[in-house]
This record gives sequence, structure tokens and C-alpha cells, in this order.
Amino acid sequence: MSNNTELNLKDCEIIENEIKMLGDEIRALKAEKADPNIVKEKVAKMLEKKALIGDAGKSKEMSKFTLKTPKGTRDYNPQAMSIREKVLNLVTNVFKVHGAETIDTPVFELKEILMGKYGDEGGKLVFDLANQGGELCSLRYDLTVPFARYLAQNKQTNIKRYQIAKVYRRDQPYMTKGRYREFYQCDFDIAGQYDSMVPESECIKIIDDVLKKLDIGTYEIRINHRLFLEGIFEICGAPANEFKNVCSSIDKLDKQPWEEVKEELVKVKFIDEKVVNKLEKYVRLREQNPSFDRIQLLEWFEKDEIASKNAKITTAIEEMKLMFEYSECFGVSSSAVFEPSLARGLDYYTGLIYEAIIIECPFFIKPEECDEEEKNARIGSVAAGGRYDKLVGMFLQGTGNDKKAKNDVPCIGVSFGIERLFTLVEMKYKTCGIPMRTNETEVFVATAQKGLLKERMKICKDLWESDIKAEMIYKKNPKLLTQLQYCEEKSIPYAIIIGQREIEEGVVKVRHVINRQENDVKLGDLTGKLKELLNC
Amino acid sequence: MSNNTELNLKDCEIIENEIKMLGDEIRALKAEKADPNIVKEKVAKMLEKKALIGDAGKSKEMSKFTLKTPKGTRDYNPQAMSIREKVLNLVTNVFKVHGAETIDTPVFELKEILMGKYGDEGGKLVFDLANQGGELCSLRYDLTVPFARYLAQNKQTNIKRYQIAKVYRRDQPYMTKGRYREFYQCDFDIAGQYDSMVPESECIKIIDDVLKKLDIGTYEIRINHRLFLEGIFEICGAPANEFKNVCSSIDKLDKQPWEEVKEELVKVKFIDEKVVNKLEKYVRLREQNPSFDRIQLLEWFEKDEIASKNAKITTAIEEMKLMFEYSECFGVSSSAVFEPSLARGLDYYTGLIYEAIIIECPFFIKPEECDEEEKNARIGSVAAGGRYDKLVGMFLQGTGNDKKAKNDVPCIGVSFGIERLFTLVEMKYKTCGIPMRTNETEVFVATAQKGLLKERMKICKDLWESDIKAEMIYKKNPKLLTQLQYCEEKSIPYAIIIGQREIEEGVVKVRHVINRQENDVKLGDLTGKLKELLNC
Repeated sequence: MSNNTELNLKDCEIIENEIKMLGDEIRALKAEKADPNIVKEKVAKMLEKKALIGDAGKSKEMSKFTLKTPKGTRDYNPQAMSIREKVLNLVTNVFKVHGAETIDTPVFELKEILMGKYGDEGGKLVFDLANQGGELCSLRYDLTVPFARYLAQNKQTNIKRYQIAKVYRRDQPYMTKGRYREFYQCDFDIAGQYDSMVPESECIKIIDDVLKKLDIGTYEIRINHRLFLEGIFEICGAPANEFKNVCSSIDKLDKQPWEEVKEELVKVKFIDEKVVNKLEKYVRLREQNPSFDRIQLLEWFEKDEIASKNAKITTAIEEMKLMFEYSECFGVSSSAVFEPSLARGLDYYTGLIYEAIIIECPFFIKPEECDEEEKNARIGSVAAGGRYDKLVGMFLQGTGNDKKAKNDVPCIGVSFGIERLFTLVEMKYKTCGIPMRTNETEVFVATAQKGLLKERMKICKDLWESDIKAEMIYKKNPKLLTQLQYCEEKSIPYAIIIGQREIEEGVVKVRHVINRQENDVKLGDLTGKLKELLNC
Repeated sequence: MSNNTELNLKDCEIIENEIKMLGDEIRALKAEKADPNIVKEKVAKMLEKKALIGDAGKSKEMSKFTLKTPKGTRDYNPQAMSIREKVLNLVTNVFKVHGAETIDTPVFELKEILMGKYGDEGGKLVFDLANQGGELCSLRYDLTVPFARYLAQNKQTNIKRYQIAKVYRRDQPYMTKGRYREFYQCDFDIAGQYDSMVPESECIKIIDDVLKKLDIGTYEIRINHRLFLEGIFEICGAPANEFKNVCSSIDKLDKQPWEEVKEELVKVKFIDEKVVNKLEKYVRLREQNPSFDRIQLLEWFEKDEIASKNAKITTAIEEMKLMFEYSECFGVSSSAVFEPSLARGLDYYTGLIYEAIIIECPFFIKPEECDEEEKNARIGSVAAGGRYDKLVGMFLQGTGNDKKAKNDVPCIGVSFGIERLFTLVEMKYKTCGIPMRTNETEVFVATAQKGLLKERMKICKDLWESDIKAEMIYKKNPKLLTQLQYCEEKSIPYAIIIGQREIEEGVVKVRHVINRQENDVKLGDLTGKLKELLNC
């Protein structure tokens, strides 16, 4: 890394200018055949300046191009893309199996649409477009708020939709940990007025289906309820206006010991220690009773003298029991559990909340061999969501729709941590030694002799017309070795080889690239024979 | 509407801040157990402020919403998306049949990467991100420049890749004509040092394949060569520095009569009338000799006494002849033609250039019934591209790579006018009455009686587990009519209906939604039977 990372753009420009001026001076000096020592001195000075802004400046254009992607973003090469495509196809197919439609929204929204939806912290992380005259716009921060805007704008009250698209957060990037400023989100949501817990169970089912099919290890779908948390706060005497504040600490319990969380609550957030002590019993219930199953945990609260008297808690417990009943009908595995300490961040949740994490994974390389991104994918959530019944209403109210009853479009959804899933599947491929193909070419059309370009072209044409994926090299006189090496590199299963003899006899050699077996096939039978071979 | 609409953003922010400060004060007062009256006073003050920016202390954001997408952008509803998905799948499959890989690049690039690549006009239309501290970035304007940056940055010298992604142009939008500020591009490019005209012919083949498969009418792939144009300019005495200027007029010949083009050249661009008259003969050659085929047209220039003496023209003609020879081997239809007046805009082309347009289309509704977007899709180009051998080199030179020889990564590519193709396919669906499905649900699980929610859930589970796309309504007691109407609306082919009788007999009714035929099927045979039905 060069040292220019510490210079801001303004500084760079100033130095660049100085370099330019020195360059002009040097040229002038040389032109008038000045004392070489003076020239040398100037050159040294210029090199010094150049070193300041980058590694030993070469041409003056170089400072115009920094060949990189913007901070916090990256390119995806064909290998990364092929993993992405596989994972996205699998997830999309699950959504389609559940009858979902898809929509698309612009990558930027009016700034005012996004404002106030992501809490104080989120708000600061929104990317704005420059004001080039006209509306103030910002890049989308998630897909949920644009979805709610879409529903409100189109006065649509029910839909089951998925959307897979990139979102933007001006977070401090931590690329080695997989935290980027541009990343995919992959959302499934159900909007509409339906019976209690039925859409909820389908969302849980979808998480279960996706994680089962991805086959990247055992997982847990942790479930909680906003009303449950609010009720617990009430019975512990935690101030209602500190709800978000306390939640964000409690939510860390999956990664931090209670003692640390408690310290933060008492010493940083100034929550009364008595309150915190009361909270402990409830939020650590699962942790401290590992033998309890999800129903036993829920029933504990029904039996608890204090908790069972709180209306919010009883509603939440009832709903969660119903949800587990339904999701059992849907065949959701026992991986779905009740976790009293789950308290997801976003402001807009109003009911059930959930997140899924990978517990154990046979494909994990040893922790000490993982890079940071891989480690992070192992511990972070790979899917999360919940019910948000008021978000669409916020938009409808905003436009002055005064019919209160119409102002609510209840919604529930799940967002897959698709970037982490990409990383995990990549690890699986690596560990299991599954070759990662970057294209899908089935047959490479090669020549053993010079020329024969047009003959190869005609064979390609025949293959393409039969929808066989085929390639050839764009050269008149390629070397056979080069062509076969390409086949191995790209894991292309078959090569067709033609030479003068084959042309004369009206045949081609079909070579199995891995086992190197070769057979002559009549030109007329070629596509049929290949289709046969490719289907096995 | 509340009164805060009259407040501007700045005012809102100031008031918001005051509210926040009052909140802090109130918390502090409470903590130190201050006089309740003082607290009350502060609370009243805060509520007053809140009322200023929104009705009675609710979130201030609500009244600011204008429920729309930013200027020049739009949402895509499930219907639009289903057409898009079909078209993109078809195009992607053609790319894959030709062995292409895919890459992805960030939606924004460093501003300096895009600068100077799109001519003066293009440069003005780039969307910038706001300077929120850090690098200056802009939204990508096309996929070609990011691709060239990718190659240069990764020092990659050959690849055959496609990329389908959105690009951004701060153009005056003309939405009724289908001109948006955010739109898809769909590019296929071949980078690498190869033999003359081989990659060119494959690009032409790909255009031919895509348009043939889309089946939206007869089309023409118009081909020309930058050197040909330069040569013609030379022999007519047109000033070399007016090249771009003259080209942009000549290029309008497909939409405007010669007289208008001539007038623009002479009166607006001040090109000598004698030069313009000389040009006419060459650029209108095809128009004035409609009986000539592509080879006859090319050969005309070989025979022409003046043209045949120009080195640029002879090179261009030779290359185009070779390209037609090769593309014939690839089975490209006679839709590929030589068009001497084709002169595409972008600066970076260096060799063969081409564009495809739809000539006649059986699906076209009568012109007077077309809306502007449809009309425009009929006349605009649906694919275009060419050779650009110097673009990657611009980036490599910029970084100070001093080995001249390595500075060229020859490239050729094609970009599909995918938005117009979407419109054309949509017209085809409309005209032919093909139902546009927004989801792919194969079976709807319905109930004829109240209740039976869990029974429906279990059937859904069985279907999902067999990868049958299935849905049910999220209600305990839905009306049968509502459920069947949903099936018709969504063109779902089959409905399963259960009632008490069916449950008792261990059967379900399978109903063909269109012909309304119903058959009892044993529950155990259901998935097998459905798979059979769905395969026909």
C-alpha cells in the first residue's frame, strides 16, 4: 500500500499541481540547456513530491487513474459470480415454489422516503446523490423501505413478493470481515391482512427450506416477539423510552457473556441495576435451561406468576405457540427455537422477529485457517426478519390519506444474509474440492492441425443450433496443447478434435477431457451423440 | 395534509435538534429527581415543538413524503418483471451457449475512471454521488468502461464475458418514449488478441441468435467499419477534425431523408457543400441500390476508381468481406448487411461497428394504436456494438505501465437494447393474447369448508417437498369462490380442494382450473399424480 491513503483528495491535487509545475520547469531548463545539476535538483524534488502521492509517479496521467473500485466495494470475478448464481438460483427457486412474484425498484429513492426509517445510526449511513439540480436522492439502504413505499404508492394491500438487489451503506467498511458498502439483499415478504401466525409460519418455513437445501451445516432459527420484550421490560420496570437502547445490549447476548452486557446496561446506559438483575432471569432463560424445548420455554412464562399477568407477554407467548404449531404442519424442523434474548435492531418491527445462524458446519475449515470473512460468516446471522405492520401506514399517512382503517398494510418478511451464504457455500466448495466452473461450456471444438478454422466454425454452428454449449479458439492456427489445456482449466467435459484425416473421412474425434478417451463419431451423428453423452 | 409541508428541510432539522436537546434535559431532570413542575413545563415545550413539525408529536417524516420514484426512474411490477425475466433468461442462455462467463462491478466507480470516456455530451450526463467525505464517485454510465477498468486493474488480457446490470444517465427523461435515467444494459464482450474478424463474427452470430430466438419480427444487422468512414472522409476531403461531427449527422440517415442531413451538414456544421455532395454517393450507396446484396455493395468500393485507392477503405472492405465469410460459416442469416451510412456515436470504437433494428413485426399493433414507448421500440436499435481496441490501454497507460506492447487489450462487444426488447416482447404477448403470469404457482390448495387450515398446510408441505410450486390462502375460513378466482387471476393450472368428506375418505379433489374438471385422487398418490399432470 502506498502512503497516499493518508492524504485527502485536496492535498493530492495540490501536490499534483506542484509536480506539474516542476515538470514544466524541468522541461524549460532542459530546453535552454541549463546546468545539469540544477536540473537534477529539480528532478529530485519532483520525485520526492511524486513519492508523496503514490509509488514513484510515472506518467502524469497516472494520478488521474487510480485503478481501483471505490472504498468498500469490489468486483466479482467469474468464479465468485458462478457461486453467486448457484446460491441465488436456489433461493429464488424456493421463493417460486412458495408462489412468490418479484418486483424491482430504482437503486435510488427520494431522500425523504428513506429518512427516519433506520434509526439515528442508520440515517447517517445513507449514501446521497450529489445535488446536480432537481430532487435530492439517496441510494437505497435496504429493500424493505422501498417495498413499503411501492405498496403505499400503488395502493396495493396484498402481495407475496421477493426482491434480490444490491443495497448501499456508508459504513466503515471492514472488507476482510466481509462488510462492504455495496452488497446484495435477498428479501421475501408477505403483505396483507391475514389470520394470525399463518404468514409467519411460511416465512419460517422458507428460512428452513433455504438453509436445508444449501446444505451448509446445522442451523438454528431463533424466534422472539416484540410484545414479549416490551412485556418483560414492563414487569422489570425498565423505562419504556429506553426500549431500543436496552434491546441493543440484550441482543448481544449471543456473542457476549451476560457480565459484559450487564456492565454496558448499568455503566454505559445508566439502567438501574435492580432492573437489569430482574431482566437477567427472563432473557437468559434458554441459556440457563438448555434441556427445555421451545414449548417448555414458552410454557415457563405461562406459569411464571409475574410474567403470566402481563398482557403483552401472554399475547406474545400465545402467538408463538400457535406459530410453532403451524410451522410443524409445514414440516419446519426443530431448528426453530424460542430465544427470549433475541432483540433485533430495526425500529419498524411490531410482532414476531427471528434470525437464523449456522451452528455447526462439516465444511468449516479449522477456525485457525479461516480468514476473517469466513469466520464472520460462521457467526453472523444468515437470515433475519419479522413483522412490520406500521411501515406502509407511515407512507400512507404521509400522503394525507385520512381513512385510518386503510392506513395499515400488515407485512412480514425475511431477508437472507446472502453475502454470508455466498461465503459459506464457497467454503463448502473449497473444502469438498468441488470444481468451480466459471462457464458452462460442454464441448470445445479443437483442431490438431493448422487451418480448419471454417470447419471448426461450422461444427460450432451445428452445436449451438442444438443448444449445446460450445466454444472454439478465435485463431486460425492454434496449438492443440493450448486448446486442451483450456478445456482442463475450464473443466469442459468434452473436446471435439478435427484434422485432415477426419475431414476426409467425414468424422470427428470426440475426446473425454478427464479420462482422455477418444472415439470417432460421424459428423452427421455428432449432435445426437453429444446430447447422449451430456445427459449421463 | 398537516402544516409541516410548508417547512423546509433545514427548518425541520433545527426543530428536531431542539426537540432532541429538550429530551436530554428532561431525562437529566428526571434522573436528578427535579421538581415535577419543571419537568412538565419542558415536556409541554417539547410537545409544542413536535406539533410544529408533524401532527401532534408523531414522526416528523410523515408529511414530507412524496410518494413517487425519482425523476426518470420507475418501479417494475410483477407483470413487467415476468417479461423481463423471460427475456433476460433467453439472452443469458445464448451467452452461455457461446461459453461466456459473467462478472459484476460496483454500481458506482471513482469519478476519475469515467471522466473523458463518453465525449463532452456523455460526461455531462453522469450521476455523481454526494461528497460525504472520501472519494468522489459516480454512478456507472455504461458497462463497457467499468469492464475495461476491470481488465486493466486485474491485468487480464482475455476473457469472454457478459454482464447484465443497470446503468444511469442524467438525461432529460422521456418516459413515454421509454427513455429513463435508470435502465438495464446487457453486454457481451470478447477481450483478447485474436485473428482478424473471428470474434467479430461470433458477436454478429450472437445478435442473430438472440433476435431469432426472441421471435419478434424480421430484423437487420447493419454493419460498417470505422476505417471505412475515415477513408470516405479522406477521399471526399472532409476535415479529419470534423469526423465525429459529420458522423453524427450521417448516422441519422436511417431516420431522416438525405436533404435534411445535408442541410444540417452544410448550414449547421458548416461543411463545404462540395464535400457533402461527394459524400452522398458513398453513404447512400445501399439506399440507392436496393438490389445489391452485401457482397455486391462491398465489391462496388473495390471497383470504384477513387475508393479503391484509399488504404483505409480497402482494409475495411477486406475485413468486412472476411467477416461475412466467417459469419456464413456460423450460419448467420442474410439479415446481416453492409450499411455505409452507419456511424455510431461512441468515441471509443476503432474497427467494425454494427447495430440491429427490427424491420417488420407481425405482432405490431397498428402504429396508431402504439404508445410512444412502443413506437420507439419499433424504430430504435435493439443491439449495437463494435470493436474498441484502445480503451483498456487508456487505463493501463494511466497507471504508468510502460511496456507499450502490453498496453493494448483488443476488445469487441455487443450491447443489447434490452429495454426495447422488453417492450417488443410485451407487445407480442399482448397482441397474441399470451397470458402473462406473475408467479409460477402450479397448484393452489383450497378448501370448500371452514377450517381445515392445518390440513391445507400439510398438503402444501408435501407439495413443496416434491418441488411442486404451491400456494394456499393465509386464512382459516376462506371462501371457495375467492380461492378459485385467485387461481384464474394468476393462471394457476390446478387447484386442490379439500372438505370434510375428502378428509374422511383420505382423498383430495384435483381441479383443472380452466376446464373445471375435477377428479378425486388418493392423498398418498397426490404428488405423483400432480407431477404427471404438470409434465403434460
